Amino acid sequence: MKLLSSPLSPYVRKVRIAAAMKGLQGKIEMVPADTNPGDNVEINRANPLGKIPALVIDSATTIFDSHVICEYLDSLAPSPVLFPKGGLERFRTLTLGALADGMLDAALLLVYETRFRPEEKWHAPWQARQQGKIDRAIDQLELAPPAWSTSPDYGHLTLACALGYLDFRHDGRWRTGHPKLIAWLDRFAAAMPAFEATRPQV
Amino acid sequence: MKLLSSPLSPYVRKVRIAAAMKGLQGKIEMVPADTNPGDNVEINRANPLGKIPALVIDSATTIFDSHVICEYLDSLAPSPVLFPKGGLERFRTLTLGALADGMLDAALLLVYETRFRPEEKWHAPWQARQQGKIDRAIDQLELAPPAWSTSPDYGHLTLACALGYLDFRHDGRWRTGHPKLIAWLDRFAAAMPAFEATRPQV
Repeated sequence: MKLLSSPLSPYVRKVRIAAAMKGLQGKIEMVPADTNPGDNVEINRANPLGKIPALVIDSATTIFDSHVICEYLDSLAPSPVLFPKGGLERFRTLTLGALADGMLDAALLLVYETRFRPEEKWHAPWQARQQGKIDRAIDQLELAPPAWSTSPDYGHLTLACALGYLDFRHDGRWRTGHPKLIAWLDRFAAAMPAFEATRPQV
Repeated sequence: MKLLSSPLSPYVRKVRIAAAMKGLQGKIEMVPADTNPGDNVEINRANPLGKIPALVIDSATTIFDSHVICEYLDSLAPSPVLFPKGGLERFRTLTLGALADGMLDAALLLVYETRFRPEEKWHAPWQARQQGKIDRAIDQLELAPPAWSTSPDYGHLTLACALGYLDFRHDGRWRTGHPKLIAWLDRFAAAMPAFEATRPQV
């Protein structure tokens, strides 16, 4: 399998951690792919949206997005279980994943605001709108950081990658006033060596 | 169950069609929710991201996003199957859903560009970047519109809602040069009365 990827993408990081948790790193070839130009033919052929990660399974089958790829990897090996099979437990995990992906989407839009626009076209109310999504999510998570039993699951690893991205690109401002969530991320990192091993570095 | 919703949201439309396919409309109370202000307390309590749809299952459990809600509704009744249970068939369905959701995300960003910014802050290269995602996806889908066997599944209904949104907010420009995809949407609408019943109207 080939993973179109970048060491700086938080969505790719999710997949790399999932692969490590399932013992599948050796089966995935990492293919560097730069999404910034927007006209990267190889990426656009794999995913017309021009986004990574995309997992090329064989010449006929490419799957995305990071949620879908993580669930696919989960299906390839029995343990640990990243996606609970059913019941409300499954939908709580998926909702935590959607919350963390939404934090990432907002955090990316804030980065793109300054990367893809000249400064005179930055728009403070739009930036505040995206920042509000992140801030509310952080505040809610601080009330009761999501526990795991034997091993973190897909929801937890997605949240860890979202917080890691806020550390990487947003100066870790989320940390102020959120000691329980900081402790939560430290516990995740201690439980999951792949988190440190995939830390983005410029 | 209560669904925070708007008749104009394409992501809500996905959930309404899924509910109709599963015979669950009578079990879901629609609660109108306006995401435009950004500080809607009821929405932000249900989903800190400030997005709809959000499905309030009970006082302790709210789930989102539309993908997660559709999968939950699929789990409540046996047929038709919206999410294949396993195998590559499942991941092809999920990837089609992710592709169509990505088309919607780009189409929404284009709407938000003019809704949430004054004209002097619109940025043509950003708009072209988002339009490119939509155009490439439409071109790829035209090559081989995704068939269904007995009944459309989650991937198909998501694509139909994406095309419906491009008709609603983007003047149906996708239709030019894509006769097979137009015929596909007509077939979907004929198979699925809920598609017409949920058509957005200003």
